Amino acid sequence: MPATPPPPRDSEAKLQHILLHAAQTFAEEGFEGTSMRDISRVTGVSLSGLYYYFESKQKLLYLIQYNTFTFVLARLQARLETAHDPVARLRILVQNHIEYFLSHPSEMKVLAHEEDALDPPLRDEMATIKRRYYALAREIFDKVAPDGLATGIQPRVAVLSLFGMMNWVYKWHNPDFDPGAEELTNAIVGIFLNGVLEEKGTLLATGSRARTAG
Amino acid sequence: MPATPPPPRDSEAKLQHILLHAAQTFAEEGFEGTSMRDISRVTGVSLSGLYYYFESKQKLLYLIQYNTFTFVLARLQARLETAHDPVARLRILVQNHIEYFLSHPSEMKVLAHEEDALDPPLRDEMATIKRRYYALAREIFDKVAPDGLATGIQPRVAVLSLFGMMNWVYKWHNPDFDPGAEELTNAIVGIFLNGVLEEKGTLLATGSRARTAG
Repeated sequence: MPATPPPPRDSEAKLQHILLHAAQTFAEEGFEGTSMRDISRVTGVSLSGLYYYFESKQKLLYLIQYNTFTFVLARLQARLETAHDPVARLRILVQNHIEYFLSHPSEMKVLAHEEDALDPPLRDEMATIKRRYYALAREIFDKVAPDGLATGIQPRVAVLSLFGMMNWVYKWHNPDFDPGAEELTNAIVGIFLNGVLEEKGTLLATGSRARTAG
Repeated sequence: MPATPPPPRDSEAKLQHILLHAAQTFAEEGFEGTSMRDISRVTGVSLSGLYYYFESKQKLLYLIQYNTFTFVLARLQARLETAHDPVARLRILVQNHIEYFLSHPSEMKVLAHEEDALDPPLRDEMATIKRRYYALAREIFDKVAPDGLATGIQPRVAVLSLFGMMNWVYKWHNPDFDPGAEELTNAIVGIFLNGVLEEKGTLLATGSRARTAG
């Protein structure tokens, strides 16, 4: 854990600086394996400086998770405002999620690995925010195929499988040779709506997915 | 961490007993947060008894991961022996994976969260086994649609998205109300091959997926 440049002086910028480097450290060393002293070292902020922003390591973890989810959720809501086509809205959901977590792999890892590390009531608060995100995703999904949904697949299973495709990306994505956010969005939306087999392919032929022969 | 019944006397059964309870403890408390003394307490095996089987906590974590993967891989290879239809083989891949991890959520969590906790060369050995599993999955996938694959989707992205759907299940599956292994397999294979939209549906109409109207 090398020391980083001196922290910004502005209070909000300093908090963001702390959250960024704390997320990286938690991602690398695990929440249990990281002390407030480690956070102080990697951020260049004194222990008392850290305690000015949050009273415990628990609260720091909460802030990382809370900030991440509220940012992703707020940006999604803003992007959805002008989109009315159901498929376009689903695409925005995937793109918004992929874009964020492809550029924030540490935050993704901390969210995925350390959700149980939060004690109640902080854990319950995070669960509430996650439910809100899931509910919005479900709402978007339910409009995509109100009477055309492949039967035998429960909407809950479908939506959580979509999250599975998106949330597993941090495990395998190599920026050196794997596709960026846009191509990855196209692939995931394509698989989710139409599967990997060529045959159907009317709905996504609007340029969101390249095709050879129809 | 409550104490468990006395460990079996047979050496191999005793090792399996240790791996099972160690996986549960690592899943609950994290690898870092668990000591060999904790493992001794939850398994009822003395510290010297534990060291008879593995010389370190690292080696114990490796054994959990190694046993899980080699079992899943060996069972998959056995099940594939009599199956020749490409779609049937893909279904076997998914079913084999889902069946195992639905009934072994602790092992899934340890695999997902603690892969970086292994130091080399143990980490490299695990990476080799995982690559073998991925290569087999890729081989199965490549035969499913040799000339019908939806374009614009890279096979690597497709296969890893399939693993995403399967590997995220441990995060959301509630055995009280979510579908069991067979229905979940149908849903994931269905989404992966045909997407969530009804329209296409010739390939899976062989009973692996119920349909209302075509």
